Amino acid sequence: MVRYCLTIEYDGTNYVGWQRQITGSSIQQELEDAVKAFCGENSLVQGAGRTDAGVHALGQVAHVDIKRKTDGNTVRNALNAHLWPQPISILKAEVVPNDFHARFSAQARSYVYVIINRRAPIAIQRHRAWHISRPLKSASMHEAAQRLIGKHDFSTFRASHCQAKSPIKTLTSIDVRQVGERIEIVTKAPSFLYHQVRNFVGTLKLVGEGKWDADDVSKALEARDRQKGGPTAPPGGLYLTQITYPPNNP
Amino acid sequence: MVRYCLTIEYDGTNYVGWQRQITGSSIQQELEDAVKAFCGENSLVQGAGRTDAGVHALGQVAHVDIKRKTDGNTVRNALNAHLWPQPISILKAEVVPNDFHARFSAQARSYVYVIINRRAPIAIQRHRAWHISRPLKSASMHEAAQRLIGKHDFSTFRASHCQAKSPIKTLTSIDVRQVGERIEIVTKAPSFLYHQVRNFVGTLKLVGEGKWDADDVSKALEARDRQKGGPTAPPGGLYLTQITYPPNNP
Repeated sequence: MVRYCLTIEYDGTNYVGWQRQITGSSIQQELEDAVKAFCGENSLVQGAGRTDAGVHALGQVAHVDIKRKTDGNTVRNALNAHLWPQPISILKAEVVPNDFHARFSAQARSYVYVIINRRAPIAIQRHRAWHISRPLKSASMHEAAQRLIGKHDFSTFRASHCQAKSPIKTLTSIDVRQVGERIEIVTKAPSFLYHQVRNFVGTLKLVGEGKWDADDVSKALEARDRQKGGPTAPPGGLYLTQITYPPNNP
Repeated sequence: MVRYCLTIEYDGTNYVGWQRQITGSSIQQELEDAVKAFCGENSLVQGAGRTDAGVHALGQVAHVDIKRKTDGNTVRNALNAHLWPQPISILKAEVVPNDFHARFSAQARSYVYVIINRRAPIAIQRHRAWHISRPLKSASMHEAAQRLIGKHDFSTFRASHCQAKSPIKTLTSIDVRQVGERIEIVTKAPSFLYHQVRNFVGTLKLVGEGKWDADDVSKALEARDRQKGGPTAPPGGLYLTQITYPPNNP
């Protein structure tokens, strides 16, 4: 049994999310089907981040155990051949020690959320960004976002059906950058609560519109109450960009 | 009768192209349907560049005459409302003089062609870029591309069913730029032959792969024979980015 670490890009638009569900097609299921088609083995593909329906990944990481003797490049090419024409691509497949775990070995997750801020609807970026027509002040959003950094009870930004044991998490960084009509919210943490990034973005939008200021964000955070936070931003703007592992891991 | 100049973005993936055809849905038809839904008028929406099936636009320009008294912002908003949820967006609508013609007043067309050059298939950019897995030398492509600049008989790069009266065109500029795995071919000319940009790109790919050099591109150009050119690049990588008009025109 050899363990492979997979780095994966996908367009999440037409999937129910990372995790297998009876309601539709999931990234995890498609990968397990590709493994089966490649080597005839039933497998469990374990992902580092369980992205939601409509959320994309540029650098999801997962591991899978395969009995058949082979190598990383063969696994990558074979899975890509079986995944085609679905918008799921194995960027890299590497042999890892059997104690490597995509989820539990991970030290940090990085996400980017993309907003297109202009009057006209978006066409090319449809389902890949959040279109906001009212002008946003991205500098104010960045300033307010800094209030979220550190170790906090993030109940205000936690989805009601979040399964995490504790709402206490440590946010490492969150930056709001604008180039022309494109605003990116780039954030990193050891781990996130369910919907946490999208709830941050929905709240920061209120700041960008001038309805809230940085103190309102602090107050919302301190309230530890989902009702006091902003709305949940739509999934299409969110990308899982990177999973960070300790040195000597992939 | 007031003439409006429209600047339009669209994702061409699921359309037969700009021009109305009986075989499927076209951008032109969708725009004319939106005008009809807005003001009840039958119209002819005249585009500056007739993009092909699967080709995208970030800045297509068209004009249309409307009897109903209204203004540019109302036209933009109303057409966008009627176009929704199709991936076609009116970025701008402006009143122009009645002698303005989107196609015949245009002084230049600009296109960009996007290649993603990496081993793994593309997921997020599917239908929006050309995936080439063999490593390309973009500096060689840029050097060879310069041989195409100027006034030439471009028969080598002209589709067999091109309707232009003459194969003689003047190419203003063509630049090949690479940032990481993304290669962009940016080109501008007063006008292009049918498939000219895609045939340039298919030829420059041969240079990037090391199969051809700049002299081979010159020889192909001089042959004035489509059989001597490289293959036609797929439509999904091509974007009409800008139409240039004389000063005091939109």
